Amino acid sequence: MTISKAAAIGGGVIGAGWVARLLLNGIDVSIFDPDPEAERKVGEVMKGARRAYRQMLPEGLPKEGKLTFAKTIAEAVADADLIQESVPERLELKHKVLAEIDLHAPANAIVGSSTSGIKPSDMQVAMKKHPERLVVAHPFNPVYLLPLVEIVGGEQTFPEAIEVAKELYSSIGMKPVVIRKEIEAFVGDRLLEAAWREALWLIKDGICTVEELDDIMRYSFGLRWAQMGMFQVYRIAGGEAGMRHFMAQFGPCLKWPWTKLMDVPEFNDELVELIATQSDEQSSKWSIRELEKIRDENLVAIMDVLSKTNGGKGWGAGTLHKDYVKRLGKLAKKPVSQAAAKAKATKPVKKAARAAGKKG
Amino acid sequence: MTISKAAAIGGGVIGAGWVARLLLNGIDVSIFDPDPEAERKVGEVMKGARRAYRQMLPEGLPKEGKLTFAKTIAEAVADADLIQESVPERLELKHKVLAEIDLHAPANAIVGSSTSGIKPSDMQVAMKKHPERLVVAHPFNPVYLLPLVEIVGGEQTFPEAIEVAKELYSSIGMKPVVIRKEIEAFVGDRLLEAAWREALWLIKDGICTVEELDDIMRYSFGLRWAQMGMFQVYRIAGGEAGMRHFMAQFGPCLKWPWTKLMDVPEFNDELVELIATQSDEQSSKWSIRELEKIRDENLVAIMDVLSKTNGGKGWGAGTLHKDYVKRLGKLAKKPVSQAAAKAKATKPVKKAARAAGKKG
Repeated sequence: MTISKAAAIGGGVIGAGWVARLLLNGIDVSIFDPDPEAERKVGEVMKGARRAYRQMLPEGLPKEGKLTFAKTIAEAVADADLIQESVPERLELKHKVLAEIDLHAPANAIVGSSTSGIKPSDMQVAMKKHPERLVVAHPFNPVYLLPLVEIVGGEQTFPEAIEVAKELYSSIGMKPVVIRKEIEAFVGDRLLEAAWREALWLIKDGICTVEELDDIMRYSFGLRWAQMGMFQVYRIAGGEAGMRHFMAQFGPCLKWPWTKLMDVPEFNDELVELIATQSDEQSSKWSIRELEKIRDENLVAIMDVLSKTNGGKGWGAGTLHKDYVKRLGKLAKKPVSQAAAKAKATKPVKKAARAAGKKG
Repeated sequence: MTISKAAAIGGGVIGAGWVARLLLNGIDVSIFDPDPEAERKVGEVMKGARRAYRQMLPEGLPKEGKLTFAKTIAEAVADADLIQESVPERLELKHKVLAEIDLHAPANAIVGSSTSGIKPSDMQVAMKKHPERLVVAHPFNPVYLLPLVEIVGGEQTFPEAIEVAKELYSSIGMKPVVIRKEIEAFVGDRLLEAAWREALWLIKDGICTVEELDDIMRYSFGLRWAQMGMFQVYRIAGGEAGMRHFMAQFGPCLKWPWTKLMDVPEFNDELVELIATQSDEQSSKWSIRELEKIRDENLVAIMDVLSKTNGGKGWGAGTLHKDYVKRLGKLAKKPVSQAAAKAKATKPVKKAARAAGKKG
């Protein structure tokens, strides 16, 4: 199952990342974002995404999908089969937007919410027509490169919607992982939040600076987690005795005073200032755009190299990356039929042309 | 400043990892470990480490240092300038071992403890002669590949000892980060512990399996953290508005019910069994040795590829890796002088030969 046309509601960092991934897969996207700067911002993200995809596909990219800026949600979602909602994390706003999407979207379209934390059950109550097709589809920044998407269904979500969502997101090179029980913040952000809270304490207490903390991560366990998660890493750490040994050895540490778990640091101006100042010291020599460029180049390089290890079979994100690049490469080489090429020249039949260009 | 001879007290996963890094840097190591299996276990780690280093240096490795199994701590530390303690994490055992090391080590030798969590001040009280030369030097598994070493001084540690330790660990390709204030578990393990505790809850509550959790990590933020830490990543996530914007947007989430922060999961047999069983399902198709091989190949590949990004200058662990491989490559090519080659043939002057082979 593939996506014929997508709609993006919200074009911030995450929304624009979705738009970039979809367009670079040759899929037309209609976007709605009331920000007058939206077009410029999406354009910036597209520039970065194109550069990253050129690194993946030096021989050429597939023909990009067409991006349309819609004036209303109704217009954006009218003929989409995937609608990705990426508006700010306020429940009342999600309700308003999802109600509007629900009212105007084709009945069988999948509605994916990019929320990092709100439970789908709490959102789908606002959808009066077809709440059963709402799933949380929580991606990670940059969306056009990182493959993970957490899929979470709510009380009213049909299992079929989850199956279709898995297929749709897989079709654009992603790794959908279905979360078994609905909880706030799902899995990825629970882990991130736990580490983030601890990190704030470490900075606040002057144990290290943000740069030192970042170095500690990227010269050690960050390198491990790019290819194996914590359980597989710890299984190895247990040595020949494996996981049970590791658990027996390190389990009790949980009760030791090794984290600030009982408390949340007060999030005041002083802490924000401390962190922002240290962050400037660490990174202000690069603009955000330069940092994005470096990040993207590194991400592509890591996924590419992981696609070649393990006897050439690839490993983890590398195996997926290999398939993705191969598929995009084929898409790029696909000859456009005469009829399709002609049709492309005229707006109204654009969709037929796209379909012809994509099949097979 | 370089290491002429090292001693390793304890040859478990971490101790043997130190031994491997040192030997592969051409440094002689004397090890003490009462485990009758120690020699075999260290041999296994050496096998893996050699394979990884051959991947880094296909044209040949430097001549390995000589490994000696000492019968006592006194014998092991006798003429070492770096002594690495990696015994199990029990304070009374650390005290016993450190007292013994202190008694017999050369006065100016640095004593580095591999402890993951015990404060150096709590350990050095057992050292009656020279507590001022104890530092925590906390590495990450696999020690022969991951560059980070957290350096922590205690109340009695001289600042000079920290400076010397930084130089010694740097000389074997590592990235020392000095922790500014002494706390239990330092920085890396605080972050790991926070994530680990949250992960245990997620498994216990049936939100996901260990395999799903690992996938969630390695297809998303794990790829990010191999090259940028969380603060730099979040700076970018703030978009054009940067870090202050990110903090303003996500700060309040800390107060939301997004983690199980107020509680520690009960670490009972049921939880151990659940995790160990799921870990078997995820990974039992590979032996621990096979997993180590895959992990090491991936780590070398990632560091290697990161040594080529950023306009060829490399980035993060990649830049360090590039220098390390270059240095080892030079060491491997260094012609052994006639005299040194001759001396090498006879045991007693071996050290002179090694010194000749290492200088310049």
